[in-house]
Amino acid sequence: MSEKKDVVIIGAGPAGIQAAIHAVRKKCDVLLLGRIERSALYAAHVENYACVDGVKTGQELLEAGISQVRHFGASLMDDDVLKIHQEADGFSLDLEGGSTVATRTIIFANGTSRKKLKVPGEKEFFGRGVSYCVDCDANFFRNATVAVVGNASAAIDGALTLTGYASKVYLISRNLVASPGLLKKLGESAVESVTGTWVSEIQGDDAVQSLLLEDGDEISLDGLFIELGAKGAMELALEIGIQLDMDTMSHIETNKKTETNVAGVYAAGDITGHPYQMAKAVGEGCVAGLEAANFAKKQKREEDA
Amino acid sequence: MSEKKDVVIIGAGPAGIQAAIHAVRKKCDVLLLGRIERSALYAAHVENYACVDGVKTGQELLEAGISQVRHFGASLMDDDVLKIHQEADGFSLDLEGGSTVATRTIIFANGTSRKKLKVPGEKEFFGRGVSYCVDCDANFFRNATVAVVGNASAAIDGALTLTGYASKVYLISRNLVASPGLLKKLGESAVESVTGTWVSEIQGDDAVQSLLLEDGDEISLDGLFIELGAKGAMELALEIGIQLDMDTMSHIETNKKTETNVAGVYAAGDITGHPYQMAKAVGEGCVAGLEAANFAKKQKREEDA
Repeated sequence: MSEKKDVVIIGAGPAGIQAAIHAVRKKCDVLLLGRIERSALYAAHVENYACVDGVKTGQELLEAGISQVRHFGASLMDDDVLKIHQEADGFSLDLEGGSTVATRTIIFANGTSRKKLKVPGEKEFFGRGVSYCVDCDANFFRNATVAVVGNASAAIDGALTLTGYASKVYLISRNLVASPGLLKKLGESAVESVTGTWVSEIQGDDAVQSLLLEDGDEISLDGLFIELGAKGAMELALEIGIQLDMDTMSHIETNKKTETNVAGVYAAGDITGHPYQMAKAVGEGCVAGLEAANFAKKQKREEDA
Repeated sequence: MSEKKDVVIIGAGPAGIQAAIHAVRKKCDVLLLGRIERSALYAAHVENYACVDGVKTGQELLEAGISQVRHFGASLMDDDVLKIHQEADGFSLDLEGGSTVATRTIIFANGTSRKKLKVPGEKEFFGRGVSYCVDCDANFFRNATVAVVGNASAAIDGALTLTGYASKVYLISRNLVASPGLLKKLGESAVESVTGTWVSEIQGDDAVQSLLLEDGDEISLDGLFIELGAKGAMELALEIGIQLDMDTMSHIETNKKTETNVAGVYAAGDITGHPYQMAKAVGEGCVAGLEAANFAKKQKREEDA
């Protein structure tokens, strides 16, 4: 086993990158685990990150971030964590590659995995008409025709939001379940609800052009929002007793300092909940990196004493 | 008086810019008040903002941000708020230029004014050797000679932090006041404490080269950190009953949603407290912009009902 790390960050998206930058600049020994391709940002287009003008691809932003992380001297490892063991003065992580890493602190920055439709075209057109985030991408579909697919309030909310941007909004559901108030609002809106069916294929060439539905119908459109809810990437966190957000039960509960209920464990980015925005992720990553660095330094002093 | 705004943001630094971007993309009528030259970021050099590689000037980052704000359609006004009046369904703001603006929500993003030394050279060399933030800029002074000026624990903390970066650290104070523990730590550190005097002039050509002290001594160095504490830019906030952070009494108290104790009023960036980092500011700006937009939309529906 190598020297004990001060800070291990799980997840190389914007939250993890920002946490690594701040922790390593505090002269900590920092390991960033993961790869940028796993970040929800990777296939996205970003135009709303303050002080970065124009539209950038998630890939180019993340590559710039990794270059910063390397420049400041954090270690990077493309490996997965299999299991976390809590120990007397920190944690040890079993990695899929077979190695074990000891650390004084952990930052969970591994995002949420959006539930997938699992239909042909979903993967190919992600970022080219297929989106998992209305709040992030509605603005790209001004005056376009779009659909939302999903059965719960998240899908209805998404469709209602989109009516403020797109010229035509479909809501495709097998069986809508939501509050009477929300269903009433949907009924009064411009959304065209298509119920009792489901998306069976997403078609297009360079970008999405149409949907095939299970009942055989076809809808021509420019974008599909998949709103099936989010699955937390947090099984590891649960194993060491991290508390979830009681409202959603699918995010890690943190305070303003990004602390979880377990001392020395922090969380930042989508995994702590909405809004799923790059700016919110880097803001929490900044705080988590600085807080974890302070915690690790204090603990190291105690170990040395 | 013009049409009522949904969101008025006070302060055109990174927090205000990010808040404007997110609120206007929610289809709100947004006014951003202020000018980038007033932001603490303006004269700074930034290398730690995730996914923006290399060293950028604060000026170029803020100009890019303003270009985004214009692109998405927020209004910009270079004016100061003289007074805020709380009304039945929002606020009205008297501006120095003589106009009045009505709004459903307010976001305070006007930073903190660092207390100034008020000596020759301070203004000229700000960003060229003179800094008000050890955490932000320590990394630029690796193996350099630096000084911190100040009389309280913030100055001692700053000097101790700098020993991890600079090769030589002076602490200049008239009369150090801090806890026995911190004074002991200072005594055991590599910091050279120069007490009973004060900085009378900062000298250099392109960048800082030396300090003149009141007792006539001169110190050759590369950087001076001015740590006199922060003066909140929040008189306006106090007038409408905004609660301060009880720990520092110089920041606005907010929760994770950036809400203050007054409904419809949010705060983001340095004005909510440490860390004084661009990433933390945009993270809070993002949340504040989205929360204020939601609040304004809800209120507008009530007004229309």
